[in-house]
Amino acid sequence: MDIDGISHHISRQYNEELEEVRNKVLQMGGLVEQQLANAVKALEEDDAELAEAVVMTDYKINAMEVDIDEECVQILARRHPAASDLRLIMTVIKTITDLERIGDEAERIGRMAMKLDKTEKLNSTLAAIGHMGNHVRVMVHDALDAFARTDAESALKVWREDKRVDKEYEGIMRQLMTFMMEDARSIPAILDLLWSVRSLERIGDRATNICEYVMYLVKGKDVRHTSIEHMELEILGKKE
Amino acid sequence: MDIDGISHHISRQYNEELEEVRNKVLQMGGLVEQQLANAVKALEEDDAELAEAVVMTDYKINAMEVDIDEECVQILARRHPAASDLRLIMTVIKTITDLERIGDEAERIGRMAMKLDKTEKLNSTLAAIGHMGNHVRVMVHDALDAFARTDAESALKVWREDKRVDKEYEGIMRQLMTFMMEDARSIPAILDLLWSVRSLERIGDRATNICEYVMYLVKGKDVRHTSIEHMELEILGKKE
Repeated sequence: MDIDGISHHISRQYNEELEEVRNKVLQMGGLVEQQLANAVKALEEDDAELAEAVVMTDYKINAMEVDIDEECVQILARRHPAASDLRLIMTVIKTITDLERIGDEAERIGRMAMKLDKTEKLNSTLAAIGHMGNHVRVMVHDALDAFARTDAESALKVWREDKRVDKEYEGIMRQLMTFMMEDARSIPAILDLLWSVRSLERIGDRATNICEYVMYLVKGKDVRHTSIEHMELEILGKKE
Repeated sequence: MDIDGISHHISRQYNEELEEVRNKVLQMGGLVEQQLANAVKALEEDDAELAEAVVMTDYKINAMEVDIDEECVQILARRHPAASDLRLIMTVIKTITDLERIGDEAERIGRMAMKLDKTEKLNSTLAAIGHMGNHVRVMVHDALDAFARTDAESALKVWREDKRVDKEYEGIMRQLMTFMMEDARSIPAILDLLWSVRSLERIGDRATNICEYVMYLVKGKDVRHTSIEHMELEILGKKE
């Protein structure tokens, strides 16, 4: 094999390594999404068995994080990635941290679902929590989809969704606070639900983190902690 | 200058760059600590002005995160760090994410402190919150100190502290829940305190994250998601 052939061979291997890391992130994301869906379903349907399954599965997500992290270190050490390849590795390192923490939040919701004592009165609130849970799950899904397609515009679109999630959060919080004020004995049970809703709100925040990493990956600029107007200018090239 | 002279010169510059990144992390940590101390003090002493100062200062921490992140990317791109240097960069990238989020929690506590309506009844609880706040602040400080001295044993010691913080957390939660059950009208105000205490608990978790990165930095092994027994074996070389 001549020199060109060898360097072509190496670069193909390198591309395969990057592709493998990218795929592993998406696999990890798929499991996180499933955990989140199951945790919310367990809460909504008062399904203690499903809730326990969520709690018991979290270790898989943790193992995936450690594995992908290790792979990134290997690539940094052996391949010395530059430019967009280096940004990809940085994006992966940060994204999997948020995915792992989303997994932790799903586990927390699972724990709450295990001890939930469902009453008739809670039905409509649980339905609203289910709706919010689905909303943040779709956000996580779409953020990872934007990552898979390195699509900054989609990432920005998902990022914007978080405002709607925050509104849902506030509505449910008001409802839960009313229940507590009406019936002091319900306070401990309601507090568990409160923590779960807070977890969902945090998951929405983490999905926006992933969106910011994707915008960085595509544009090569760090848009964290800037205004929405600044992001739109960077991503869409215009002020809306 | 001969070749040796040049490579010596480059390696000195490189070492200075690594040293600068390390110092910047400690500077960022110093500001985060100060924000946390001020937020808790504002809450404890019902000092709305100090609380507002905390909220207004958070942008500095965000800017530090973006700056250090950029510096790490530059070092990865130009210096191709290997072995312990690469682990240092990985540790920095992860540590500043947690520091930034600790800053966010301090800001949240600041916001709660701004609207706190302090009553006589809350005095002892606020003192307990102040105590817990100081405890997690010391944890953050000691975790960064372990980072500065690349001291895995100290990191493990700080990591263990989190159990005591969790106990304080549970005690304060019980107290707040009792207040809510005794007086339904106090619920909205107590909930704000509840979120603040939750923030402190999360800051303790984040300090343990930093400890795990330090153990990785020193030992070259990822100890996240393992048991305390496993960590002790790795760090201290014995089962206790």
